[in-house]
Amino acid sequence: MDEPVLLTGAGGRVGQAVLEGLADEYEWQLLLHSPPDDEPDHEYLVGDVTDEETVADAMDGVGAVIHLAGDPRPSAPWPSVLSNNIDGTEKMYEAAVEAGVEKFVFASSNHAVGAYETDERTPEMYREGDDYRLDGTEFPRPGNHYGVSKAAGEVLGRYYHDEHGISVCNVRIGNLTRGHPPIDYERGQAMWLSYPDCARIHRCTLEADYDFEIVYGISDNDRKYYSLERAREALGYDPQDNSAEWNADEHVADYERESV
Amino acid sequence: MDEPVLLTGAGGRVGQAVLEGLADEYEWQLLLHSPPDDEPDHEYLVGDVTDEETVADAMDGVGAVIHLAGDPRPSAPWPSVLSNNIDGTEKMYEAAVEAGVEKFVFASSNHAVGAYETDERTPEMYREGDDYRLDGTEFPRPGNHYGVSKAAGEVLGRYYHDEHGISVCNVRIGNLTRGHPPIDYERGQAMWLSYPDCARIHRCTLEADYDFEIVYGISDNDRKYYSLERAREALGYDPQDNSAEWNADEHVADYERESV
Repeated sequence: MDEPVLLTGAGGRVGQAVLEGLADEYEWQLLLHSPPDDEPDHEYLVGDVTDEETVADAMDGVGAVIHLAGDPRPSAPWPSVLSNNIDGTEKMYEAAVEAGVEKFVFASSNHAVGAYETDERTPEMYREGDDYRLDGTEFPRPGNHYGVSKAAGEVLGRYYHDEHGISVCNVRIGNLTRGHPPIDYERGQAMWLSYPDCARIHRCTLEADYDFEIVYGISDNDRKYYSLERAREALGYDPQDNSAEWNADEHVADYERESV
Repeated sequence: MDEPVLLTGAGGRVGQAVLEGLADEYEWQLLLHSPPDDEPDHEYLVGDVTDEETVADAMDGVGAVIHLAGDPRPSAPWPSVLSNNIDGTEKMYEAAVEAGVEKFVFASSNHAVGAYETDERTPEMYREGDDYRLDGTEFPRPGNHYGVSKAAGEVLGRYYHDEHGISVCNVRIGNLTRGHPPIDYERGQAMWLSYPDCARIHRCTLEADYDFEIVYGISDNDRKYYSLERAREALGYDPQDNSAEWNADEHVADYERESV
């Protein structure tokens, strides 16, 4: 990727993980929702993804987009996700196509498929040895309005790819935590995404050639119920972390040090 | 269904087909977007599905909803489908759940999956003998913003079913024409839905027991590329029409009489 990469929602946690891992590998153009406390190390704009002018400015000269911006709260109310997540993503795609951007990476979420975790399947599906897997071809099944908005974003990507040819990768991001996996939270351990693996999979989305993909963005956890097959095959993603390699008893010092 | 059925978009073509076939079988409560030219034969309200108060009033005492309202134009611009189709459908579901409605039938569309009709597959997929079939389990693949909005409506239904228990049936309606199938339009013949079959499938959605379904609403056309299996199995739908039984040469008088 020779041209700059536009990163929206750059101030959020996923944005931090991406920038910490890939700051020097790409030329970044950040879109921030609010003015930053500290001057960023990269070019940036401040504005809202629902504002067409902001989005058009942000897209100028860009080769690829990693679109993370939106209301990130699983409990976000419908009017907010309708505007920030659904309408904002449509405006981003429209501007990307208009600007001739080649590649669009969309931060989807485990919440787009959260309702597959039925009472009958849990907690067994969160445990090593259980062979239930979601592979990214399934119909969305969100457990909240936030998840509805992420599924709608995936469908928007399908449309913009089919009708306008832009390469689209949807990453259904798991449970991103810095340093170590969630403690005493099986579901979070099953879908853990380490900061370094988060950077890795986003590097892959910028480097690989693809048409339209839906992949799961998690580390290679023994407990996983999301298949990594498509991410490995389509993107060459090679995760290096595994929530099972952390043990609260052995790493108690690390936990205490790293917890934020 | 002993309680009244709320029919939104009752003034549109699908609404007409439903009412023509089922007027006497149910007690209807109509929601019309504009005041009617002629006094309807049923109870009715005039208002917009994006207006929470209207929707709450319309839902009062209702046992089931057939939700057809929305911008019906395949070429409808994004702001219109975002508001009328996506937000409107969310408001309908929210009000239905609030009112304890048991069953929600959503008028989805062939446009939710229109982009499966790729250059490589067409026109062969529109012809008898071709065995390509969509069965309703596939990921949405809309060819326009209208189709995006219909796919988003399906996902909303998935959420409201999973989280709130309401029975949901999405009918991906084909090409509804009165009297005879589209002439010289293979695609339209493949996905033809006759007026009587439109009434039949909606009767089934009101009578059958189901959790969450996505079915194709077409007649039993020889040319079809939508599977009727799920509609037959889950709903007991037994279509009686077939676009292949119409031949322009034989029925020229009918065509001329029936064309509108």
